Amino acid sequence: MLKAAIIMGSDSDLGVMSAAAGVLDHFSIPFELKILSAHRTTEAALFYAASAEKRGFGVLIAGAGGAAHLPGVLAAVTTLPVIGVPMNANSLNGLDSLLSIVQMPSGIPVATVGINAAKNAGLLAAQILAVKEAPLRAKLKAYRAAMKKEVLAKTAKLDKEGYKKYLEEMK
Amino acid sequence: MLKAAIIMGSDSDLGVMSAAAGVLDHFSIPFELKILSAHRTTEAALFYAASAEKRGFGVLIAGAGGAAHLPGVLAAVTTLPVIGVPMNANSLNGLDSLLSIVQMPSGIPVATVGINAAKNAGLLAAQILAVKEAPLRAKLKAYRAAMKKEVLAKTAKLDKEGYKKYLEEMK
Amino acid sequence: MLKAAIIMGSDSDLGVMSAAAGVLDHFSIPFELKILSAHRTTEAALFYAASAEKRGFGVLIAGAGGAAHLPGVLAAVTTLPVIGVPMNANSLNGLDSLLSIVQMPSGIPVATVGINAAKNAGLLAAQILAVKEAPLRAKLKAYRAAMKKEVLAKTAKLDKEGYKKYLEEMK
Amino acid sequence: MLKAAIIMGSDSDLGVMSAAAGVLDHFSIPFELKILSAHRTTEAALFYAASAEKRGFGVLIAGAGGAAHLPGVLAAVTTLPVIGVPMNANSLNGLDSLLSIVQMPSGIPVATVGINAAKNAGLLAAQILAVKEAPLRAKLKAYRAAMKKEVLAKTAKLDKEGYKKYLEEMK
Amino acid sequence: MLKAAIIMGSDSDLGVMSAAAGVLDHFSIPFELKILSAHRTTEAALFYAASAEKRGFGVLIAGAGGAAHLPGVLAAVTTLPVIGVPMNANSLNGLDSLLSIVQMPSGIPVATVGINAAKNAGLLAAQILAVKEAPLRAKLKAYRAAMKKEVLAKTAKLDKEGYKKYLEEMK
Amino acid sequence: MLKAAIIMGSDSDLGVMSAAAGVLDHFSIPFELKILSAHRTTEAALFYAASAEKRGFGVLIAGAGGAAHLPGVLAAVTTLPVIGVPMNANSLNGLDSLLSIVQMPSGIPVATVGINAAKNAGLLAAQILAVKEAPLRAKLKAYRAAMKKEVLAKTAKLDKEGYKKYLEEMK
Amino acid sequence: MLKAAIIMGSDSDLGVMSAAAGVLDHFSIPFELKILSAHRTTEAALFYAASAEKRGFGVLIAGAGGAAHLPGVLAAVTTLPVIGVPMNANSLNGLDSLLSIVQMPSGIPVATVGINAAKNAGLLAAQILAVKEAPLRAKLKAYRAAMKKEVLAKTAKLDKEGYKKYLEEMK
Amino acid sequence: MLKAAIIMGSDSDLGVMSAAAGVLDHFSIPFELKILSAHRTTEAALFYAASAEKRGFGVLIAGAGGAAHLPGVLAAVTTLPVIGVPMNANSLNGLDSLLSIVQMPSGIPVATVGINAAKNAGLLAAQILAVKEAPLRAKLKAYRAAMKKEVLAKTAKLDKEGYKKYLEEMK
Repeated sequence: MLKAAIIMGSDSDLGVMSAAAGVLDHFSIPFELKILSAHRTTEAALFYAASAEKRGFGVLIAGAGGAAHLPGVLAAVTTLPVIGVPMNANSLNGLDSLLSIVQMPSGIPVATVGINAAKNAGLLAAQILAVKEAPLRAKLKAYRAAMKKEVLAKTAKLDKEGYKKYLEEMK
Repeated sequence: MLKAAIIMGSDSDLGVMSAAAGVLDHFSIPFELKILSAHRTTEAALFYAASAEKRGFGVLIAGAGGAAHLPGVLAAVTTLPVIGVPMNANSLNGLDSLLSIVQMPSGIPVATVGINAAKNAGLLAAQILAVKEAPLRAKLKAYRAAMKKEVLAKTAKLDKEGYKKYLEEMK
Repeated sequence: MLKAAIIMGSDSDLGVMSAAAGVLDHFSIPFELKILSAHRTTEAALFYAASAEKRGFGVLIAGAGGAAHLPGVLAAVTTLPVIGVPMNANSLNGLDSLLSIVQMPSGIPVATVGINAAKNAGLLAAQILAVKEAPLRAKLKAYRAAMKKEVLAKTAKLDKEGYKKYLEEMK
Repeated sequence: MLKAAIIMGSDSDLGVMSAAAGVLDHFSIPFELKILSAHRTTEAALFYAASAEKRGFGVLIAGAGGAAHLPGVLAAVTTLPVIGVPMNANSLNGLDSLLSIVQMPSGIPVATVGINAAKNAGLLAAQILAVKEAPLRAKLKAYRAAMKKEVLAKTAKLDKEGYKKYLEEMK
Repeated sequence: MLKAAIIMGSDSDLGVMSAAAGVLDHFSIPFELKILSAHRTTEAALFYAASAEKRGFGVLIAGAGGAAHLPGVLAAVTTLPVIGVPMNANSLNGLDSLLSIVQMPSGIPVATVGINAAKNAGLLAAQILAVKEAPLRAKLKAYRAAMKKEVLAKTAKLDKEGYKKYLEEMK
Repeated sequence: MLKAAIIMGSDSDLGVMSAAAGVLDHFSIPFELKILSAHRTTEAALFYAASAEKRGFGVLIAGAGGAAHLPGVLAAVTTLPVIGVPMNANSLNGLDSLLSIVQMPSGIPVATVGINAAKNAGLLAAQILAVKEAPLRAKLKAYRAAMKKEVLAKTAKLDKEGYKKYLEEMK
Repeated sequence: MLKAAIIMGSDSDLGVMSAAAGVLDHFSIPFELKILSAHRTTEAALFYAASAEKRGFGVLIAGAGGAAHLPGVLAAVTTLPVIGVPMNANSLNGLDSLLSIVQMPSGIPVATVGINAAKNAGLLAAQILAVKEAPLRAKLKAYRAAMKKEVLAKTAKLDKEGYKKYLEEMK
Repeated sequence: MLKAAIIMGSDSDLGVMSAAAGVLDHFSIPFELKILSAHRTTEAALFYAASAEKRGFGVLIAGAGGAAHLPGVLAAVTTLPVIGVPMNANSLNGLDSLLSIVQMPSGIPVATVGINAAKNAGLLAAQILAVKEAPLRAKLKAYRAAMKKEVLAKTAKLDKEGYKKYLEEMK
């Protein structure tokens, strides 16, 4: 099975990015998790991405904040799909990071997810790998079904208890 | 080979979205192109996305402007990867569309590309399908090599001519 | 009397959205309150909105954060007025949600209120239902009169006490 | 039948706001159209709104650009639903107007539609009046059905002609 | 001597707006401080502003948050200078309030100061009244001189102590 | 009578700023109009503002675009009221200029008007000078009355002609 | 004398970036001008920057639009000062580019100038090289003096002609 | 060796700006640190910058928040490179400060770094002075090498421990 990689520029991003790892674990997708900065370890980051296909990877996830160049720079040296996770790392609420990742020039796309949405990045990686891996598709459908069930259970509970009691219990 | 779908909410989006079709044509990826609105033809849009996997699709591309719900709504009813193209369709320069597409709730990712970046959406679709189709990967690498060659040719020309003459010729 | 519905995508929205319920309770407007997600329970959400008119509803209130598709998607399948409540649910302060709700395409309006303004959504629902229900109009006027009285009492108190003492007492 | 009012602050808004009038005409809803400024004719604007209910109006539509106070000020003196249309009237692309209209204080809601979305304001007015007028509801459903049919016709045409020919014909 | 008025829409604004009162007190400028809402007590607010000139006022200060109509609405009914104080009252950081106040239509200016800058509003009121009152001008110059002296004392202290000790002492 | 000054950083601002001059002319307020840049002619700009009071000025108007420092820098060296006009001079639509002018530090206010609102700056200057000059107050009231009359004439015309004919004639 | 380099990602940037070349020509600073993309020719761009110091360069200027990674990526592989020029290349008015360039992570600064401000980038390069080259400092002072003279000549002309005639002549 | 100056408008900026001092200390670059406001001590600030070259300075660093005029005003009176540090000092998250600093008019550049990025300002100052001082260049390279080593050590540790243990230890 193809592997996924999760790359972040600093270990301060690990608290957010570990949610992607959690999803990959959930779906039994093999993965590597690396701290590699586009600016502080440029060569190592480029080498990692450029050799990823040969090493059996099918998709890369990269998270970065501020002037977030990591996803785009990795995407420049591989044709594997690169998923970018903008991170809310400073006073601008992640807007700088979002624009730095999503507005890539023509020719080099980055598949951008929401700000701090590392969990969705993991799910998107699974959806992409499932293009090749049929059993993964089945697991994704089960995951969706579970999400749906959970929402319906909540609305049923709300019907039964009323919103005042429901709110009480959430505290 | 798995097919791609390109879906847009209005034919006024076709001028931009046809760039995705052009890329898929370039890579000989079979595709369908549909006008289906999340709001005006909700059922038809949902049915199309929900049945896409069975009909042999591997990836969906959806473009929309303003309060751009189409990519997210399609993503809700399929586990195929959905690529969202925010479109600059009104006075807010596409920012409304970008945020409406990229900031999806946990559980339902959309792989967002830049504003009006339909060409990159086509390339990302190709990169995703190449997870399964090795020959497509080779074509993507050739495409990248051609882009690189083009840039290097331009800088060589600039060296030779100087910027004043180069600018003259661009007019 | 026509009923109102309050729908939210997640029970994490209940703390804010319960203010709409409080207003409806105040005006003795019968209502249902549901947790139904546009993305996680698409069919159930659509079915609920599409059948609302037949079930005796006159207006829907829908709250959502981030890429907030719920109000627009419900509006797509009913001609009842749909009131959208943008929610401040992530780092972008509700701006993403506001734009995702208010910038609807031509043909499918959503009556948008301010960010987190669930109380105003409840009042707007009452104002809309009062188009048919004359006694509700009278109650709305009384509500306004009470608000006015409260402000005038405060300015009278401020005149009497001076701002230093008034501030002291607010602590 | 209850009437609708369309109020704008300046005749420079008429080009945009006439789309609301067009919709009301389509649905045979009686309406008045007035130029009344919150700042230049404050008294006249307030008097108009305050007396609207007695004069047989069921809903008000108000459009304004920049620091757009008109919808909120009218809403302050009537309990009829007031629909606000933010207008793109200066260099800030309508964002100033949107925020000036939608972010109303607690107690006085304005039902805000998208920037320059006067057509949607007309439709929302019709949806609100249809709470009382059953035949209007039927017309609204027919209107939706026609929109749906139009989109489906376009996608059928696109299927038949291919995107290149379709684009050619749009020029 | 002409009086100043400080008007705010809610007593929740008093914590910020009292800084304007503090400045007026410092300069011995007589003033009134009122809680009057543009939306909840429209008539009373308009009456207050419209009669202000006759009652001996020379300048009005109005503070409001969100869709902040108060300064503009007061400015509409008086030709006295109106100073607007945008307030940071919700999730949008005062940007909504700033745009709602500063972007007034042609013909009705509001002299806008920074977000939450009630102290500067008080100073601007003093600068405006000093157009007529020479002794106030002298006091304003003394105030400026004191500010200057304070900054120069701080830089002298920093020179002497070094930044590490200075920072220590600030804790 | 006290004079007004209009200062701008570049003659490219004259097209916009001349509207302030037009208003001052209308009210027969004596004024000077200068091109003085905060950055290119710092000393001359500071000298002009610092000596303005002695030279018989009562108010300064300063317009600038981009990183618009001119109003704030002039305000730093005089206690006369300084009116700032943010200008839409580059790709950021005047937002940079607005924030550069309005967000002044505590102690040095600038009375900011809307983007490109030079006409309102002229009116505000007149309103400020009228604190001392009673006849100017009367002229301001007449100006307001004329504006009101103009709006009421337009709405009367619209009533008479209907919006279709009115729109025709505007072309 | 140390050389300057001007690097841009695409020849579509040449129209703007040539203003930097014009300034360097004016100051007789030797320079190279290259088209090298961070994403399409990553290796060549990195090699160019990494070897710049040895090849006799003292400063680099890099311009890019959208998700503008070029200045930051070059800065990552050299300790020469890198000046970044954000470019207004798409619907977001250069804001994406500005944030992508200026918000660099700790450790790798980019000296950012205004949007499209290639001329200022050339001047800043000259100011930086003048740290070592005294004659360049003298030329910079002369340049400033000429700018000042030009502004003062314009204000003198305006005094003489009046604004109406001056505006006439600008047409 | 040429000196650096660090100037800030208020001692409330010292907590952030001291990071620039720390970097200069690290590289043994002599420096002065001053509190001088563009608005409260205009003359002193201008005199300081205008005389800096003669007093042996090679570069100035200026930090300011809000309508941040200090860097631009200093840049206006010296041809030494001026580095601007936008500060997050109020509710607008530093965006006002960033735009007030970076969007300088043509002719007077400010080398802008990220919001609150005083450390990067110190590094940029060192990179600029290293144009003349070869030993400083060597120190900068060592600094970069240390940063790189630190990142690589972290990724090695992460490889060894796994992300769960790593996260545990970060708490």
